[in-house]
Amino acid sequence: MTPEEIIVREKMLGNDAFSQWLGIEPILIERGAVQLKMMVREEMTNGFKIAHGGIAFSIADSALAFASNSHGIQSVTIETTTSFVKPLYAGDVIIAKSREIQLSGKFARYIVEIFNQSGELSAVFYGTVFRTGKPWLKEGQ
Amino acid sequence: MTPEEIIVREKMLGNDAFSQWLGIEPILIERGAVQLKMMVREEMTNGFKIAHGGIAFSIADSALAFASNSHGIQSVTIETTTSFVKPLYAGDVIIAKSREIQLSGKFARYIVEIFNQSGELSAVFYGTVFRTGKPWLKEGQ
Amino acid sequence: MTPEEIIVREKMLGNDAFSQWLGIEPILIERGAVQLKMMVREEMTNGFKIAHGGIAFSIADSALAFASNSHGIQSVTIETTTSFVKPLYAGDVIIAKSREIQLSGKFARYIVEIFNQSGELSAVFYGTVFRTGKPWLKEGQ
Amino acid sequence: MTPEEIIVREKMLGNDAFSQWLGIEPILIERGAVQLKMMVREEMTNGFKIAHGGIAFSIADSALAFASNSHGIQSVTIETTTSFVKPLYAGDVIIAKSREIQLSGKFARYIVEIFNQSGELSAVFYGTVFRTGKPWLKEGQ
Repeated sequence: MTPEEIIVREKMLGNDAFSQWLGIEPILIERGAVQLKMMVREEMTNGFKIAHGGIAFSIADSALAFASNSHGIQSVTIETTTSFVKPLYAGDVIIAKSREIQLSGKFARYIVEIFNQSGELSAVFYGTVFRTGKPWLKEGQ
Repeated sequence: MTPEEIIVREKMLGNDAFSQWLGIEPILIERGAVQLKMMVREEMTNGFKIAHGGIAFSIADSALAFASNSHGIQSVTIETTTSFVKPLYAGDVIIAKSREIQLSGKFARYIVEIFNQSGELSAVFYGTVFRTGKPWLKEGQ
Repeated sequence: MTPEEIIVREKMLGNDAFSQWLGIEPILIERGAVQLKMMVREEMTNGFKIAHGGIAFSIADSALAFASNSHGIQSVTIETTTSFVKPLYAGDVIIAKSREIQLSGKFARYIVEIFNQSGELSAVFYGTVFRTGKPWLKEGQ
Repeated sequence: MTPEEIIVREKMLGNDAFSQWLGIEPILIERGAVQLKMMVREEMTNGFKIAHGGIAFSIADSALAFASNSHGIQSVTIETTTSFVKPLYAGDVIIAKSREIQLSGKFARYIVEIFNQSGELSAVFYGTVFRTGKPWLKEGQ
């Protein structure tokens, strides 16, 4: 496994009970760019019979956390903006694609786009992390 | 029950599987101002052993949906901004307090503050809804 | 002058060419809560004959800067969210009222509401600053 | 001139006093993608001797307005998020590059990146517009 994969798969996702409950699986793990997928289940829907806004947010927030921490420095989310474009339904498979907009000094910014299985854009997420400076891996790991 | 309570308790929360999974309970239902509470469970935490960002977002998004729809007009979330201030842990009881900032025409804006059981601010959520014009209740209901 | 007034009036506004071009005047300077006013001029309008979005943003951003720096620690804006509610016209007098939502550790959050002279809400601004730790005033000043 | 150029150059920028005060010039006008430039002047700086946050916001907001209206439908900004990454100084030449993230139905979303003359990212702007349905040009124009 690459250092990015050790951090994302083992240290983060392996210990992340909520991302596991969501059924999140990585489909790409690179430095600063992580792609995730999951399926919407009935128990994730709201009173409009569409996925609760928290579902698209949660996979996007996981993608942000994994992408920003993949650089090996512990990073915490401080600000996020989320736009809801198109509803998701039970049975839909969500793909979250993160992209690094800026990485320098104390902060980094990412955009995460959420698509359904037909490639239609469902939500747009923009997030800022604070880079604590604390490394994930010991030297030689 | 007041019209606000019919909309929030019966029509919305009563059919909202994900808010039920979260364990969300209303503690105040007024026009444009809803307060909710829930307890953080282990299965809601991430790899840092704190509540996943999606948990605070989800209760805030439910509070936004309930507060904005309480006016009797179906309203959908279009944009949200969330700041993460202080971590939440398994066992913490979260209180979400929504406040209406603006209501007029096609849009309405709300701020939702998320507190832990000690009254410490954990997250700040700011959301905009689009008011579809479609009523929740038939005349005389 | 209070320490807040020395920082806001002398050190900040006194050297802030753009806030002066806008015609910004403080109407309240307290720790963490600053209110400003200015008049919209023809040269501040756009092709729709309403104030350019940058005008409401700019007075809000000045209010954020003044409110957050009033604590005596140099603070820089990192993230802002702005909602546009109601147009402003040439001749309108804008009032910007800031309120501190959170102040602790490295970050602070503020909401700034922009009103016209009739007290109608025109824009809502939500901003996050990073507190650098560097003091504005020397001891004994 | 293309229809996009008639809308952006004549109808919008030609009547936009504040964008003219800023010295904004289009360097690219395509459907949904507009690039603008301007130079920071001393009168645009704040008490830290860097460009006031309202300057980067204003060119980004103009880019958003031009890009979204270039489709021929009058569109108004409802929500914006702006991150400040790197200061701008008097004499710097700013380039604003807009990109359409989503266009469908009543809303459209754009990201605008602000660079200095060395190609360094200075600010990131994310904006949502409401499409009023009202056309800019009469048939045959």
